[in-house]
Amino acid sequence: MTERLPSLPTVEAQIEERYLKDWSGLARGTPRAVFRPRTTDEVSTLLRDCHARGQPVTIQGGLTGLAGGAVPADGDVVVNLERMNAIEHIDALEGVMCVQAGATLQAVQQAAADAGWYFPLDLGARGSCQIGGNAATNAGGERVVRYGTMRDQVLGVEAVLADGTVLSSLTRLVKNSAGLDLRFLFIGSEGTLGIITRLILKLQPVPPEPVTAFAAAESTQALTKLLRGLKRAPGVNLTAFEFMSGEFVDTAGRLSELPCPVAPGQPWYVLIESAEGHASHDAGALQTALEHALEQGDIVDCALAASLAQADAFWRMRQSIPEMLTALAPTVNFDCGLPWAEMGGFIARLQDTLQRRYPDARHLFFGHMGDNNIHLMTGPHAGPDMHAVEAEVYAQLRGRDGTISAEHGIGFIKKPFLGCTRSAAEIEVLRRLKSALDAKGILNPGRVID
Amino acid sequence: MTERLPSLPTVEAQIEERYLKDWSGLARGTPRAVFRPRTTDEVSTLLRDCHARGQPVTIQGGLTGLAGGAVPADGDVVVNLERMNAIEHIDALEGVMCVQAGATLQAVQQAAADAGWYFPLDLGARGSCQIGGNAATNAGGERVVRYGTMRDQVLGVEAVLADGTVLSSLTRLVKNSAGLDLRFLFIGSEGTLGIITRLILKLQPVPPEPVTAFAAAESTQALTKLLRGLKRAPGVNLTAFEFMSGEFVDTAGRLSELPCPVAPGQPWYVLIESAEGHASHDAGALQTALEHALEQGDIVDCALAASLAQADAFWRMRQSIPEMLTALAPTVNFDCGLPWAEMGGFIARLQDTLQRRYPDARHLFFGHMGDNNIHLMTGPHAGPDMHAVEAEVYAQLRGRDGTISAEHGIGFIKKPFLGCTRSAAEIEVLRRLKSALDAKGILNPGRVID
Ligand SMILES: Cc1cc2nc3c(=O)[nH]c(=O)nc-3n(C[C@H](O)[C@H](O)[C@H](O)COP(=O)(O)OP(=O)(O)OC[C@H]3O[C@@H](n4cnc5c(N)ncnc54)[C@H](O)[C@@H]3O)c2cc1C
Ligand SMILES: Cc1cc2nc3c(=O)[nH]c(=O)nc-3n(C[C@H](O)[C@H](O)[C@H](O)COP(=O)(O)OP(=O)(O)OC[C@H]3O[C@@H](n4cnc5c(N)ncnc54)[C@H](O)[C@@H]3O)c2cc1C
Repeated sequence: MTERLPSLPTVEAQIEERYLKDWSGLARGTPRAVFRPRTTDEVSTLLRDCHARGQPVTIQGGLTGLAGGAVPADGDVVVNLERMNAIEHIDALEGVMCVQAGATLQAVQQAAADAGWYFPLDLGARGSCQIGGNAATNAGGERVVRYGTMRDQVLGVEAVLADGTVLSSLTRLVKNSAGLDLRFLFIGSEGTLGIITRLILKLQPVPPEPVTAFAAAESTQALTKLLRGLKRAPGVNLTAFEFMSGEFVDTAGRLSELPCPVAPGQPWYVLIESAEGHASHDAGALQTALEHALEQGDIVDCALAASLAQADAFWRMRQSIPEMLTALAPTVNFDCGLPWAEMGGFIARLQDTLQRRYPDARHLFFGHMGDNNIHLMTGPHAGPDMHAVEAEVYAQLRGRDGTISAEHGIGFIKKPFLGCTRSAAEIEVLRRLKSALDAKGILNPGRVID
Repeated sequence: MTERLPSLPTVEAQIEERYLKDWSGLARGTPRAVFRPRTTDEVSTLLRDCHARGQPVTIQGGLTGLAGGAVPADGDVVVNLERMNAIEHIDALEGVMCVQAGATLQAVQQAAADAGWYFPLDLGARGSCQIGGNAATNAGGERVVRYGTMRDQVLGVEAVLADGTVLSSLTRLVKNSAGLDLRFLFIGSEGTLGIITRLILKLQPVPPEPVTAFAAAESTQALTKLLRGLKRAPGVNLTAFEFMSGEFVDTAGRLSELPCPVAPGQPWYVLIESAEGHASHDAGALQTALEHALEQGDIVDCALAASLAQADAFWRMRQSIPEMLTALAPTVNFDCGLPWAEMGGFIARLQDTLQRRYPDARHLFFGHMGDNNIHLMTGPHAGPDMHAVEAEVYAQLRGRDGTISAEHGIGFIKKPFLGCTRSAAEIEVLRRLKSALDAKGILNPGRVID
């Protein structure tokens, strides 16, 4: 800190390294100050002051974002929410929780469990990402097929606007038609319209212990047919449907020494979870449905986890992303979205092109099929190739009702490609909303749109 | 039509009576023209023209609204969507439908069923209300406890803005984080921010035949305990939980000659539906859970429908609202929302006050408890008393996290009371959004906010 900012609370005397980067690896510069307010009032005072000065502000949650949105530039004021981490209230009768935005996802999950409830959002970064960051990015994760994204978990929002106004829209009702719902200005807006300071969350009944399965299939078409069937199968309560290409399973297996749980060498695999409880009188609903799918030829092999340890091994296969990121570095990573009917063609065209152009790299497809979400990790790539890979992938989305970001957001990193997904009229409305709420453009400048 | 508006398509030569009122009964005047466009382009041309002239526009769906939002004033141009009623496309693999906004809810439900899918939104006005009106009001209805409100059924929106810009945000993906989601500007905005012309809807697997029950309880506290238990009971798949006061059941019974299906004279009743399929090997899950609730004393009596005819009779009791509206006319009708913990006190205080002040009227409480939604129908009331009744009811919501409208919207009728539910900062943001999208204020002027 070279300069005094006397009216601002909780200034950090020096800037720690960890406030300069998120998980995207993007680095932009050194902020002039990092503030870690403890209350909404402090956030409000801070923003009022920044607003008066036209001071750019970078908002930080747990810094696990993959789009660079929380990365500050030279001269920014950083507002990091980590001290605003109180679980303020739980209504254990109705299953409603009020939290400050800086609570970690894991702390929220734990507090729900302690009160006899379940908070369904879950992702690998749970120990570090904040519930406010989850809302700002509308995070997805592994349970969306059953419970929806973060948006579906939020009943009410308190946010501080650019000029310091505290906008309290902390309704806790599942249904409210008294004027436009203002939650949605902040969920998924990546810090461009306000700082989320408090959330009211909807909790779910604790689901029964899940049954976990691993299956192999010959095509993505077969997988979508299986998924459609499982969504309709009596007694199946699908809580995850995570697909992986053969190359993904092969790579994960070799890096993490995990044997393929079913027939190896197949083009597609899927991890399936059904929270169907203990119907001990007959075979479980998932098992019955998978036997049927085998008979129909929708899958070519499958295995049910016989123990928690085996279920864990299935999940480790799916979750060995960090090892892959290291082994294939530098990678380019995608979180595209597509209608089911378009998935097979999209993947086949890209497998073909990428294999031809980058024969020494690996191109791993996986993701949350039930949420229309295809991840692709491809690498290693030389620096100059990276943009060509991006352009290639996004070009394949055009005209196919796809999205360039199904869950990680736009931030800085995907901003040049926003026009692949959103029309000129949509981008113009995003601009109008930005000027309506932050006319001076001080909040997270340069993210999402210019 | 006294005047020529040459550049505008599809002008009606004379104004039919039915375009002057909705179900609220409010009447405001005679519009100068009623347009019934057939395409989004026609809507766009029309609005561009109106925008240039500063011409106020009233947007009409099926005119079943209860807040007066679709009722035109003298000199308005009416845009009625009834000719834009095409079911444009159904993706039967994934369960996604694209429709024009003027299709009736019933037509949407039928088209989904014909394609082997289920569209879960349902309400008494299904034959007349339009899917665009359902979105504009974020309609609720009887299945919200399981499927959410209209908002949860919409994947994408096409809308025409005040200046004629066609804003196509027709994504069909369940997950999309590429910039702020613009659906939510239109869902629940009651026609103040744009004309919804097309919707992409998410369909659901057809649920199993429901089991229907009717139960009696001694308090609303007992009902919330029952509801909480049913949401957690293994095998129960709750699709409706509709409560009614003893006075409601008594009145409905007398007006519609329906015998009370369980012990009469109890303070509270509830209609319960669980879509749990045919588990023929043992008693159904709902039956087991209700037996348990009887043992626990949460309910004092209950009956399971033994036939479709009996289930119908249970539902007729809940749905005999039109007969009551006639018998108790003129009535004042409410669609309040409250946390479960506040419901008992709210109802008790109002029963007491209303009974004391209006001993000759009936005060009937009922609604969708799982959605925090309490309806109250009270009448007959002399004209001058009506506002006093409104003031009394809304005063009871203050400071209790409640809403003055859980499902019908604000329109004209509840506008004076918006401040009971939304803060000054929220209303200011609603204003800023209105000027960002409709600076001249031509769309549905005077609704929701001034
Ligand atoms: C190992 C790993 C696994 C992951 N898995 C998933 C996954 O499965 N699904 C998924 O969706 N994402 C996933 N992510 C991405 C990331 O975790 C999520 O995007 C997460 O929601 C970000 O939260 P955060 O608190 O770390 O936000 P940050 O990275 O700090 O910030 C993200 C964006 O939100 C803004 N922001 C943060 N807090 C606030 C606030 N209080 N108010 C306003 N704006 C704010 C920031 O300015 C920035 O633009 C993963 C990341 C990692 C590292
Ligand atoms: C018997 C009966 C039962 C009902 N039950 C329920 C219930 O259970 N739950 C519930 O929520 N409601 C219920 N309602 C209220 C009403 O049916 C709903 O609000 C319905 O969604 C209104 O649809 P509509 O097409 O008739 O809209 P309208 O009445 O025509 O319009 C309603 C509002 O939406 C605007 N609007 C309409 N179409 C568009 C469009 N395309 N673009 C932009 N704005 C538009 C209008 O300007 C107006 O402000 C009931 C009504 C009746 C008469």
